[in-house]
Amino acid sequence: MTFPKKVLIHEVGPREGFQFEEQILPTYLKASFIESLAQTGLQDIEVASFVRPDRVPQMADAEALVASLRTFPGVNYTGTYLNMRGLQRATLTGKLHIKHGLTVAASDTFSQKNQNSTIDESLQQLRTRAEYFSQNQISSVSIGVATAFGCNYEGDLALTKVVDLLKILEEIALSNHLRVSQVRLLDTMGWATPKLIRQTIEAVQQLWPKIAISLHLHDTRGLGMVNAYEALALGVSDFDTSIAGMGGCPFAGHKGAAGNVATEDFVLLCHELGIETGIDLDALIKCALAAEDMVGHPLPGKVRLSGSLSSLRK
Amino acid sequence: MTFPKKVLIHEVGPREGFQFEEQILPTYLKASFIESLAQTGLQDIEVASFVRPDRVPQMADAEALVASLRTFPGVNYTGTYLNMRGLQRATLTGKLHIKHGLTVAASDTFSQKNQNSTIDESLQQLRTRAEYFSQNQISSVSIGVATAFGCNYEGDLALTKVVDLLKILEEIALSNHLRVSQVRLLDTMGWATPKLIRQTIEAVQQLWPKIAISLHLHDTRGLGMVNAYEALALGVSDFDTSIAGMGGCPFAGHKGAAGNVATEDFVLLCHELGIETGIDLDALIKCALAAEDMVGHPLPGKVRLSGSLSSLRK
Repeated sequence: MTFPKKVLIHEVGPREGFQFEEQILPTYLKASFIESLAQTGLQDIEVASFVRPDRVPQMADAEALVASLRTFPGVNYTGTYLNMRGLQRATLTGKLHIKHGLTVAASDTFSQKNQNSTIDESLQQLRTRAEYFSQNQISSVSIGVATAFGCNYEGDLALTKVVDLLKILEEIALSNHLRVSQVRLLDTMGWATPKLIRQTIEAVQQLWPKIAISLHLHDTRGLGMVNAYEALALGVSDFDTSIAGMGGCPFAGHKGAAGNVATEDFVLLCHELGIETGIDLDALIKCALAAEDMVGHPLPGKVRLSGSLSSLRK
Repeated sequence: MTFPKKVLIHEVGPREGFQFEEQILPTYLKASFIESLAQTGLQDIEVASFVRPDRVPQMADAEALVASLRTFPGVNYTGTYLNMRGLQRATLTGKLHIKHGLTVAASDTFSQKNQNSTIDESLQQLRTRAEYFSQNQISSVSIGVATAFGCNYEGDLALTKVVDLLKILEEIALSNHLRVSQVRLLDTMGWATPKLIRQTIEAVQQLWPKIAISLHLHDTRGLGMVNAYEALALGVSDFDTSIAGMGGCPFAGHKGAAGNVATEDFVLLCHELGIETGIDLDALIKCALAAEDMVGHPLPGKVRLSGSLSSLRK
């Protein structure tokens, strides 16, 4: 086991969590919550999704939210987008750290439900996006695969399919003079298992030994933390997590299911393994409790209810 | 990693879970729930605690419950007890598989809160119990340590303390002509981490290479599954788990915190690792959904909301 010395955590709760809730939370409340997160040591917070307001009304205030946010030194606010229109909206805020990425789903059925386009149509759109990046002086991109470990609609997906898609994405990047800075693997529907995590990561590490891997793990079936642990043991040091475990995917076909690995539980795991996160866990726990208050129902994260170990140590 | 070929799961939900709920569930409802569990392939179900009805009124119907239970071939019903009176009550039911054990807490504060006696007083009581076992033709016992990985009241506990207590318990057993059949390690308050699990299990395996280890892991801080996974990788094949993650410890000092690792999530993990459990996961998921209906509030287990992977595979 070669645990990394430190990890970088991308907090996705404000986007994944508030997008998933049926109620539409007021912008000022979201802003104040995000600003609390920004004062815990988190360096990277995904605050909104630039998608169609008629499909995801919870994110209709994306621009207003970003405009109202106080900024903090060393903290990046980011936003997600699915297409050029979303990317342009996010860029126009002038306040977001734009993540330049080329991500496609390995499941065609999910791709059509989530993005309204087949895998082939998505790849075509990503070619256009890569050209746009190239024309706008972007030098590097991440490449990524969603539903990389399986899909509720299609079942198991072959690892070769994931690798082949990554190769296509790499080719799209390189042919547009874009360096590949990261490989992102997303377990959108909680199909990953530690065995599959190991197989997939080892395959990617062998093919792209110099490119860092980033993981996005939903805890849909209770294996999120085990999968994260297995990835840490393989040296992965970049994770998306969600405060209090908020969220889920609206298009994944199991509305009641859990969101991403809970940030505060993952931070506890890292600290107990001697891995630095730069995060004040007790401050983060306060945010997790606030998240639960905001959404008004129990959230899946655990350590917020029991307290950090460091706070109880003698 | 040397995962075991199969694991034995001790379902503790009906005891830990229903003991932890404030409401007192009707006996017939508990019985019908336990009988459903008994038809999933589970071989070992802890159905009640023989403790003082004035301290734990939820378990006041222990005898009546056991009397009413239908039995099933290959399924053991068990009960917990803290003292001789409880052991005698459990034995008198005539229907339980009595687990003969000598368990002491590593935290003196917890011992006093949970059992109303110091560690030294507990050890004295266990000497009497061991004599009783010996006089009643019992040939083997488990020895165990509760709060083996740390304590909310006392913080970290030294591994040497755990090992020393196990040696004392072994001496009590051997001096009463009782063979030690198992070492039980209980993470009563969720202080275990994968690092500590590895250190502790390796120490126990080195000292008692021929004695099987059994783990009781609370998921208080979200590390329950990671700890179980680490233990599996060290060859441990005996686990207490709780359906839907019901429960908690009434005397652990964090009432809102989670119970044991959820049985159905752990079964999913085992099956995905190729480890046999003998359990029908989809039948178990139905029981987990029923448990949530019975207690009337969300429970922490995950896979009951999303479905097993095998049911979704093409």
